[in-house]
Amino acid sequence: MFSERIERLSGSLIREILAAAQRHEVISFAGGLPASSCLPALDFPDVPPSLAQYGTSEGEPELREQIAKDVARIGLSCDASQVLVLSGSQQALDLAAKLFVDPGTPVITEGPTYLAALQVFRLFGAQFHTVEQQDGQLPAATLQAAIADSKAKLAYLIPTFQNPSGACYSVETRQALARVLDDAHLPVIEDDPYRALSYDGDAPAPLVTHLKSAPWIYCGSFSKTLAPGLRIGYLIASKELMPHLLKLKQAVDLHSNRLGQWFIAQWLKSGDYPAHLKRLQQNYKVGRDAMQAALERHFADLADWQVPQGGLFFWLTLKNKRDTRTFLKPALEQHNVAFMPGEAFYADPDTGIGHLRLNFSHATPERIEEGIARLAGLIRAG
Amino acid sequence: MFSERIERLSGSLIREILAAAQRHEVISFAGGLPASSCLPALDFPDVPPSLAQYGTSEGEPELREQIAKDVARIGLSCDASQVLVLSGSQQALDLAAKLFVDPGTPVITEGPTYLAALQVFRLFGAQFHTVEQQDGQLPAATLQAAIADSKAKLAYLIPTFQNPSGACYSVETRQALARVLDDAHLPVIEDDPYRALSYDGDAPAPLVTHLKSAPWIYCGSFSKTLAPGLRIGYLIASKELMPHLLKLKQAVDLHSNRLGQWFIAQWLKSGDYPAHLKRLQQNYKVGRDAMQAALERHFADLADWQVPQGGLFFWLTLKNKRDTRTFLKPALEQHNVAFMPGEAFYADPDTGIGHLRLNFSHATPERIEEGIARLAGLIRAG
Repeated sequence: MFSERIERLSGSLIREILAAAQRHEVISFAGGLPASSCLPALDFPDVPPSLAQYGTSEGEPELREQIAKDVARIGLSCDASQVLVLSGSQQALDLAAKLFVDPGTPVITEGPTYLAALQVFRLFGAQFHTVEQQDGQLPAATLQAAIADSKAKLAYLIPTFQNPSGACYSVETRQALARVLDDAHLPVIEDDPYRALSYDGDAPAPLVTHLKSAPWIYCGSFSKTLAPGLRIGYLIASKELMPHLLKLKQAVDLHSNRLGQWFIAQWLKSGDYPAHLKRLQQNYKVGRDAMQAALERHFADLADWQVPQGGLFFWLTLKNKRDTRTFLKPALEQHNVAFMPGEAFYADPDTGIGHLRLNFSHATPERIEEGIARLAGLIRAG
Repeated sequence: MFSERIERLSGSLIREILAAAQRHEVISFAGGLPASSCLPALDFPDVPPSLAQYGTSEGEPELREQIAKDVARIGLSCDASQVLVLSGSQQALDLAAKLFVDPGTPVITEGPTYLAALQVFRLFGAQFHTVEQQDGQLPAATLQAAIADSKAKLAYLIPTFQNPSGACYSVETRQALARVLDDAHLPVIEDDPYRALSYDGDAPAPLVTHLKSAPWIYCGSFSKTLAPGLRIGYLIASKELMPHLLKLKQAVDLHSNRLGQWFIAQWLKSGDYPAHLKRLQQNYKVGRDAMQAALERHFADLADWQVPQGGLFFWLTLKNKRDTRTFLKPALEQHNVAFMPGEAFYADPDTGIGHLRLNFSHATPERIEEGIARLAGLIRAG
């Protein structure tokens, strides 16, 4: 009865774990949720009545202008006409998959990578070719070899505070990767939702700013910095891709909700936005430091990790390599603690045994200490 | 560089015409826009702050309950667990295409049918098989023959105040179509955005209420009755389809915007909603009657039509069959009047020559008279 692609349809493990972790007694390191205390108030004075009407598929003109201005600050110079407002940046993956991926299309991803990207590209039939991160970087030579071997048609990269690994590529790595992509004229998607969440200084400019000729899509989000419930994200793309992306956006939902767009435009133009981001950084840095301290106390003999300089996650590599999916049920049911098994972030989960992704933005420092202790106890006994 | 499906990607003619028709001097009968005077005020007192956070892919529990209650009134009895809130009902078509359509999949549509449905199903590779409407009904025997001939895997129908034809199928037609669909166990999508806009009495219960075994998806919208800018619609599906539809929804945008969902839930539970719908009906009935009067004055010798009992459109059949697409440019540029060429509503536009779709909900009665006069002048001279 169903299309052939439904055989490749998988649910998001994250959303299943989040559902299971909703009991208050569960300390959850599973999701990537903003702290409730950091969410902006949803007060809407003087909403223009015209927002009730249909809008344009491209997005509100004012918001597109402001996004173009906002990314200029990080070195990405573009015209507002290259900005497409989306119903969350997740939608960029659906549009990009439609644009580039047929059954069997070779797609390059990092190992590990964002699991919902795997989910979407897989649905459209992508054949994944993984380029492994090494010491927090992505070696350009490995990318080059993978492109040659796989005849890749698309690369999907998260160079800044990567989900799940937390890695942030250096300027030199970005330049080298851009040269490889240019040489192969390989379309690249740069997913960049965590950039504003930096705790030890600003991240280098986006990888796409180093491209000279390869087609590109840059994905940005307001879900980590303002309010995910509004479901507003955006993409910025090289000019030749825009007409196709716009038609694909039309076909999927006509346009994104205008009230959310308007709310975010108000924030971006308000003088309060930089201070809001600063508060967010300070708040999450406390969480990161609390988790680092708890990990040092409880995980020093169990795992290796790097302190993430931004984003929302620690990425642990167990010294004693075990399939962390087997810990999930006892963690949730007996120890009231939730985490994300690292295997889910690999195109082939069996090649990524022995990692855990731990979120530090949602639980309080006290609950972080308690939850890490519980998790360590479980793994030590397991 | 692109996927194979991009060869089948087309823009929406409607949205292109709407863009061209934005000059104030253009009288537009092209879109399906609510009258600005009928839009609800976007006042948001006491928004729960928790709505800023991520929500569930299924939709807000309260809204799902209210939708289930609301459709019970029209004879569709379902559980709230069968309701999936969407980012506009257009999204149902994207999800359904993903669920059912591979390149070459035979899909049955009415002739004429909603052009954005053609756009989405075509993108996924559907082969269309058209069942022609006859005297405002869809003959069940023709549907049966088309299913047998085409080995169809999916049917897409708009039984109530159809876009574009305005047809509303009788109870008997619905029962007969349902028997044919059941016998073939053919999945059917019933698109029902116009039901509340009825001007001469209520429409019969949805076609899906007559099904006994065929899988079904029923699509509902708040864009015609409340505020399209919020981008909230829904689908209700037979139980076996829900797990797949939910995963597809997760993959495309995680969930729909929560503020819009909350706003609509407030409206549905308020005592004001029935009165709001009544005002809408009265207002649009004035537009319909004004257009009928104008058509009688200016189009009696040029075209045939039925008075629509609901929805947003008149559907004209020219007595002197000509390709109405050729009128579009002079209409917009020389006569400042916009309409939708009927050809766009046929899977094969060349089989649908000589129709116009005219919207009566957006222009004032005075502008309707003026615009219809201009259009008649152009066609008479053309």
